Amino acid sequence: MTISRRNFLGASGGMALISASAVSGRAQAAAIPEAATMKESVMQPPLVPTSGPDYQPVVTLNGWTLPWRMNGDWKEFHLVAEPVVREFSPGMVGHLWGYNGQSPGPTIEAVEGDKVRIFVTNKLPEHTTIHWHGQLLPCGMDGVGGLTQPHIRPGKTFVYEFQLQKSGTFMYHPHADEMVQMAMGMMGFFVVHPKDPAFRRVDRDFVFLMAAYDIDPGTYVPKVAEMTDFNMWTWNSRVFPGIDHIVAGKGEKVRIRFGNLTMTNHPIHMHGYDFKVSCTDGGWVPEAAAWPEVTIDCAVGQMRAFDFVADKPGDWAIHCHKSHHTMNAMGHDVRNFIGVDKKEFAKKVRKLVPDYMPMGTAGMADMGEMEMPLPDNTLPMMTGFAQFGAVEMGGMFSVVKVREGLASGDYKDPGWFKHPEGTVAFEWKGEPKKAERKPPAAFDKTKTAEFTVVKPGKKSPHGNH
Amino acid sequence: MTISRRNFLGASGGMALISASAVSGRAQAAAIPEAATMKESVMQPPLVPTSGPDYQPVVTLNGWTLPWRMNGDWKEFHLVAEPVVREFSPGMVGHLWGYNGQSPGPTIEAVEGDKVRIFVTNKLPEHTTIHWHGQLLPCGMDGVGGLTQPHIRPGKTFVYEFQLQKSGTFMYHPHADEMVQMAMGMMGFFVVHPKDPAFRRVDRDFVFLMAAYDIDPGTYVPKVAEMTDFNMWTWNSRVFPGIDHIVAGKGEKVRIRFGNLTMTNHPIHMHGYDFKVSCTDGGWVPEAAAWPEVTIDCAVGQMRAFDFVADKPGDWAIHCHKSHHTMNAMGHDVRNFIGVDKKEFAKKVRKLVPDYMPMGTAGMADMGEMEMPLPDNTLPMMTGFAQFGAVEMGGMFSVVKVREGLASGDYKDPGWFKHPEGTVAFEWKGEPKKAERKPPAAFDKTKTAEFTVVKPGKKSPHGNH
Amino acid sequence: MTISRRNFLGASGGMALISASAVSGRAQAAAIPEAATMKESVMQPPLVPTSGPDYQPVVTLNGWTLPWRMNGDWKEFHLVAEPVVREFSPGMVGHLWGYNGQSPGPTIEAVEGDKVRIFVTNKLPEHTTIHWHGQLLPCGMDGVGGLTQPHIRPGKTFVYEFQLQKSGTFMYHPHADEMVQMAMGMMGFFVVHPKDPAFRRVDRDFVFLMAAYDIDPGTYVPKVAEMTDFNMWTWNSRVFPGIDHIVAGKGEKVRIRFGNLTMTNHPIHMHGYDFKVSCTDGGWVPEAAAWPEVTIDCAVGQMRAFDFVADKPGDWAIHCHKSHHTMNAMGHDVRNFIGVDKKEFAKKVRKLVPDYMPMGTAGMADMGEMEMPLPDNTLPMMTGFAQFGAVEMGGMFSVVKVREGLASGDYKDPGWFKHPEGTVAFEWKGEPKKAERKPPAAFDKTKTAEFTVVKPGKKSPHGNH
Repeated sequence: MTISRRNFLGASGGMALISASAVSGRAQAAAIPEAATMKESVMQPPLVPTSGPDYQPVVTLNGWTLPWRMNGDWKEFHLVAEPVVREFSPGMVGHLWGYNGQSPGPTIEAVEGDKVRIFVTNKLPEHTTIHWHGQLLPCGMDGVGGLTQPHIRPGKTFVYEFQLQKSGTFMYHPHADEMVQMAMGMMGFFVVHPKDPAFRRVDRDFVFLMAAYDIDPGTYVPKVAEMTDFNMWTWNSRVFPGIDHIVAGKGEKVRIRFGNLTMTNHPIHMHGYDFKVSCTDGGWVPEAAAWPEVTIDCAVGQMRAFDFVADKPGDWAIHCHKSHHTMNAMGHDVRNFIGVDKKEFAKKVRKLVPDYMPMGTAGMADMGEMEMPLPDNTLPMMTGFAQFGAVEMGGMFSVVKVREGLASGDYKDPGWFKHPEGTVAFEWKGEPKKAERKPPAAFDKTKTAEFTVVKPGKKSPHGNH
Repeated sequence: MTISRRNFLGASGGMALISASAVSGRAQAAAIPEAATMKESVMQPPLVPTSGPDYQPVVTLNGWTLPWRMNGDWKEFHLVAEPVVREFSPGMVGHLWGYNGQSPGPTIEAVEGDKVRIFVTNKLPEHTTIHWHGQLLPCGMDGVGGLTQPHIRPGKTFVYEFQLQKSGTFMYHPHADEMVQMAMGMMGFFVVHPKDPAFRRVDRDFVFLMAAYDIDPGTYVPKVAEMTDFNMWTWNSRVFPGIDHIVAGKGEKVRIRFGNLTMTNHPIHMHGYDFKVSCTDGGWVPEAAAWPEVTIDCAVGQMRAFDFVADKPGDWAIHCHKSHHTMNAMGHDVRNFIGVDKKEFAKKVRKLVPDYMPMGTAGMADMGEMEMPLPDNTLPMMTGFAQFGAVEMGGMFSVVKVREGLASGDYKDPGWFKHPEGTVAFEWKGEPKKAERKPPAAFDKTKTAEFTVVKPGKKSPHGNH
Repeated sequence: MTISRRNFLGASGGMALISASAVSGRAQAAAIPEAATMKESVMQPPLVPTSGPDYQPVVTLNGWTLPWRMNGDWKEFHLVAEPVVREFSPGMVGHLWGYNGQSPGPTIEAVEGDKVRIFVTNKLPEHTTIHWHGQLLPCGMDGVGGLTQPHIRPGKTFVYEFQLQKSGTFMYHPHADEMVQMAMGMMGFFVVHPKDPAFRRVDRDFVFLMAAYDIDPGTYVPKVAEMTDFNMWTWNSRVFPGIDHIVAGKGEKVRIRFGNLTMTNHPIHMHGYDFKVSCTDGGWVPEAAAWPEVTIDCAVGQMRAFDFVADKPGDWAIHCHKSHHTMNAMGHDVRNFIGVDKKEFAKKVRKLVPDYMPMGTAGMADMGEMEMPLPDNTLPMMTGFAQFGAVEMGGMFSVVKVREGLASGDYKDPGWFKHPEGTVAFEWKGEPKKAERKPPAAFDKTKTAEFTVVKPGKKSPHGNH
């Protein structure tokens, strides 16, 4: 901790500053220059190569693959670092920095052995570079400003050239004023496909990057110096319900790849399946070395891919398992009033913070089910509806939709799953059975038809092993 | 960060609110309805099955296994979601939400291939569901409120039915108003034993879940919106010295299983042994794929089991290795006065916070050794005594007690270890030897009987390799 | 959270306390007793054994190996726990607790099968113990104060004796008043070399421990009760640019070992190579079980080693990938003014905090390039220069320098890398190419020489797989 905003607000002038901050939020929005930004976000179909080795192209959640051109035997890409406006979910935008009109930047796809030439134009107000995270390349192409190359000044274009040594799962991001530039959203995916089209081939391949932002309700620009207390936990700078669904046909082989550029680990949990890590930013994981998981922990600066055969139809949740990371801006720091008459407390608070909304005395489930008046440019902490009601989520949450009879290459949302009859949890209409509310007082004397308790040193009914 | 309690307290009315909060703490306690809660916590002996495949039942630290009944070929369980009072350790209780009178709920045990029917009655003031974390099941039994089923309204009972596809280490928790309901303590263990009684068989099998709470000293209800700054780090909602010891006979094969539903990773460290992860919530880990560890990092929404042969008798510490997680409520945010005359500072502080306790100028070890006056309903940050004095711990800490000659199935605390003579670190009564307090000024000229420094490019005394 | 410094500062008297705190910082410095401390920090050459099995000794970044003496068949070491002054990087020192004049203490090196006798003298103002993290030993030598031995009172010397059961990567630290003593810097590395000199032999072997401190600018003593909000993220209690470079000859086999005693995971990322974990504090990792990585996540209380063949010359960054952990004290909690006219805001703030420095409206890259007036005894958040300009780093950052023609055993800094011509990213002097700033409006009609979009269910140009 150092001299900090938290201390400023704590001082006796704090309330004045809160108001000043709300005002400057609107000032921020006005001050951002108009850029070639792509506010709306729609997943684009994959770019299938027409020459060179065949591969299964990836699909970027709420994003797109960067087109390229051949120049002799060089595959040329062009990235433009610039301010962008990004919609997190309908109702809230962030004023970020990104590439080619979007944060994260477009995905780069190429093939093992390709010679790539990447032009990087800097339209930011400060210098930058690009580091090609995970790539094996000449040291001078590594993109560490000051150490391996001069910085790219505003208005300048630099060229990176290297040959792709191996297939795998990579990303790109600045290595200049890193805390600020990554906190502002500068990052992109980089997939290198194997030269052998059959190597670890899948039918569908989805990618996203995780970023965290701290944007006060009513403002537009992330607070770049926050270390832990973020309020927007995003996949490809989108939050639920604004994150694309992941759609697959029954029986297809599916890969999901992700990388983490936040400030904490994200344990990615998918329902309905177990699976193993198949690839990291270090390379392909030998099948014999991998572990079965239902939650893959992805540390900062790591990338992970996992594969599964989509043999179980349904709407399967996929999300970060930290419960605060499946919520949106409102709600990470709200006082608990469960079981409390809060009228007197709320009266006092309202004198200090006129917009204050007291939360429920019976949990917060009501919040997911009602529309609440919100400040400008923020999102409710729990939101989203599906076929059975309120989903009460936000942030890093999406749904894997596995369906029978889906055409290959069809990524459109198929709607909600039609459950076979008798396979949904249902209300019990009969008399509730008696439940054990405490351990039986004399468990050690217990003997029922189903179980018994064996005294120490005695044989179990099955004999000891 | 959003509009927050922290800001409220920071405003000029902060001190008034601190007092208000202390009062409302007692109000909270009064407002919780009397429930069929189990305040005291004693580890119950395992439930040995009398029919069906044999297995080694687990023991739940400070908990118990939920009895079941057979109904045709269905194994029926009944969970009741309800407010509970849980003792963290003698001297402090929390007003939580749990199942069947306890947080965490009772452990469910069944066998691979079993058809289970689980009744869930909701006695909470808001709706809920149960997600069967890690289980392979029909999508409609997955328990995601709104997405895969309607919510269970207060007063209603729902039925879940599925067949257990595989053995392993699982848990159950709500997937409705998740941040609140998990922060209030709703969770439970779910063990599926292998159909083959010999598969990865152990002699003792211990389970616990990790939960974190933020309960201000003098209050009773967790602050459910806290994201990082918890002060109660618990195993099965208990803290040291209130956590059961883990007892094993010399030579027995022991398994310890745990899961994490906090907001951060917990690296579980056991002394005296090395071991490998044997099972996750995704399945059994192939022995060839596992790594040797002394500290197993368990991410949020992950479960881990490790096995070891208890061949080294002793009292072996087992704990989370984050030092703040082995402390209780008092102490996570206390100013350091080491080396400072703090009289003048303390005088100023006491004007603001009358209860303020200055900490030692020579570290805090004194705190573990003395009794300090505490506010109502909290625990000292460092506490606990063993045969050699103050243990100075709290939170996620227990002791693995390995003893010779223990009867199988005897889980009673055998007391402290009797160390063989000459095996305990001892005070040196002779003249202290001279110690190197700085690296020798001319290490590169050093040559003693024991070691030398070799010039770059020269051969070592052993020859170069 | 409990009654806390944050609340004190938040109260209406906050500003007075901030000033008091700045004063007490200087008082702290004066109050620390003069000790046999080693303020300057230079990496010492390795200690090569002249008797016993041959091994490749390790090099401790900014540190040294503790000399030993033989006494019969016992290898004797002597550690002195005491207050020390440690320079983090030129311009800032911390008043810490450590061993033998330094934090971390000197590295202990020995050989599998050795009988070690370690004298521990306590010159601290409170009791302590030493736990030999990862070692297999008699329970009474395990070093858990109160549980396995009496505490070592100030002024006393204790003796630990045990035989080293296995080779590997270990550490030592107190198990008494742990939160305080580890937050003050008490820790050290412990390497046990294999009896077989050829087992997993490398040519160079580097070690460091990670510690985090919270030291307000202008003060000298860590705030020992901080749980998450540290501002000094260190390797061997040093920060960039004060951390030794890691130097290796082209073609040499290199090992880097590290351990984590902070309060959060550190994902260690090295550029230019991929690699696998070769050893943990639990033992050697079988090669078939290891995964390829470019970022190894090291949890608290874990140790990791990775090996690589230094076949790619260059200056390769190695760092924690959390961007706040590659910054120094100033800067973790600074408000963002990107895109904002901040004149009016700054005017208000200066009334409260006279020393307040507004940050740039165009990112913070300027800060790495200029000299700013700083408070006493702190370090700029981004700093350091290399051959191409400002490196803009701090904290957990160093450089792996791989060079051709380096003599074995030469650890001197070889200066900056001479890049072969044409291998450094360069400015593009031609007309900038046109870049795709948005996904083509009709991607689904796209057909160029290079790629196409295939309709769902249709064959790709290569045929479907």
